[in-house]
Amino acid sequence: MIHPSAASIKVLAFDVFGTVVDWRSSVIDEGEQLGKAKRLTIDWAAFADAWRAVYRPSLDRVQRGELPWTKLDVLHRMSLEEILTRFKIENLSDPEKDHFNRVWHRLKPWPDSVAGLQRLKARFVITTLSNGNISLLTNMAKHAGLPWDCILSAENVRHYKPDPETYRLVPDLFDLKPEEVMLVAAHESDLQSAQKHGLRTGYVHRPLEHGPGKSGAIPPAAKYDFVTKDFLDLADQMSA
Amino acid sequence: MIHPSAASIKVLAFDVFGTVVDWRSSVIDEGEQLGKAKRLTIDWAAFADAWRAVYRPSLDRVQRGELPWTKLDVLHRMSLEEILTRFKIENLSDPEKDHFNRVWHRLKPWPDSVAGLQRLKARFVITTLSNGNISLLTNMAKHAGLPWDCILSAENVRHYKPDPETYRLVPDLFDLKPEEVMLVAAHESDLQSAQKHGLRTGYVHRPLEHGPGKSGAIPPAAKYDFVTKDFLDLADQMSA
Repeated sequence: MIHPSAASIKVLAFDVFGTVVDWRSSVIDEGEQLGKAKRLTIDWAAFADAWRAVYRPSLDRVQRGELPWTKLDVLHRMSLEEILTRFKIENLSDPEKDHFNRVWHRLKPWPDSVAGLQRLKARFVITTLSNGNISLLTNMAKHAGLPWDCILSAENVRHYKPDPETYRLVPDLFDLKPEEVMLVAAHESDLQSAQKHGLRTGYVHRPLEHGPGKSGAIPPAAKYDFVTKDFLDLADQMSA
Repeated sequence: MIHPSAASIKVLAFDVFGTVVDWRSSVIDEGEQLGKAKRLTIDWAAFADAWRAVYRPSLDRVQRGELPWTKLDVLHRMSLEEILTRFKIENLSDPEKDHFNRVWHRLKPWPDSVAGLQRLKARFVITTLSNGNISLLTNMAKHAGLPWDCILSAENVRHYKPDPETYRLVPDLFDLKPEEVMLVAAHESDLQSAQKHGLRTGYVHRPLEHGPGKSGAIPPAAKYDFVTKDFLDLADQMSA
């Protein structure tokens, strides 16, 4: 079991969607409010899943160069049009669509996120490292009370994860060796990319990210530097 | 007297050195500690002023293209060598110089800065907009308790103020009109550059920035959107 002393780690960089905040229930809740106001009968869980399902393909279009650098707010807005059409929602004005698109700025944290981050912040520099754009992450932090030391994003390097530029960003900015930086994420693909670039890795289990009964297994402890149940468990394991 | 409603302003972007933190007395204090430890007899006020005096010329070398993009920590470190030689300080090791160079990460806030920012943060997004690099500003915030919503820097655009890219950064990231963003600074040249790019401006008087008896006059109220004594006065005037 790999379990380095937390003493050599200086900065914790967090994936955000799914790791820090519960995008799915947040989108469902705002969808239901919108549905009530606009007299729509929609399966908002299916809507949330459909919107999120086109997230990765939209990033891929930027990564393949089919689109120039485009911030996530704009990608979300483009895919929202597609999903609204698919769900036959036709009675929203542009300002109503713009407002709903910014639900991603208003996502709710998992119950342990704020308390866990506050403990970790006392010992480490804590930053976002997300594909969300800087204003999205800033507004989310303000809305949810997330106590980041700084906001870093794919937007800083104009490359989306898992492009190498994103994993090099924190070591470059903070003049650190890669192994002095740890990525914290609920997604193994993100952690494995971080490992390729020499970062430490902390897995956090978020069994409800995709809804009840959709959780994968907790990976073996040896696979990442820390394998944790939630941010409080991470803080315990890191003596923060 | 120009006094727009603060209601149309969404983001306050703060100059940092001199505006939020008292670089001069912080450098003097750490210099005196260093002098005691290393048995040096140095006029640390003169040292601080000399180090700061080569700040603008070092940025100018980057802006003229004589140096490639170079973060402020590195410029400070280069100019520290020059000033140490000028003051005939020869008995510092490289780690001691590196540590002293990072005094700029440990600058102390003016007495009103933290309380004023906390009030302003309740109503506006508050961000740095400084020539300091991102890690410097992040470490400073952690050290001094500055409650920024995000950390933005010349480093985001790899251009130093007053290059236009720096004043366009906040409107671009937050999808705002320039007049929805206000630069807060103690330096009229910075504010006048911001005005050229359509930003609102808030002047804050910092009469002790360059030491006692070195203060310029408070500018006429009509010259900027807000002309204030300190951050608490700014919060009062903006009803925050």
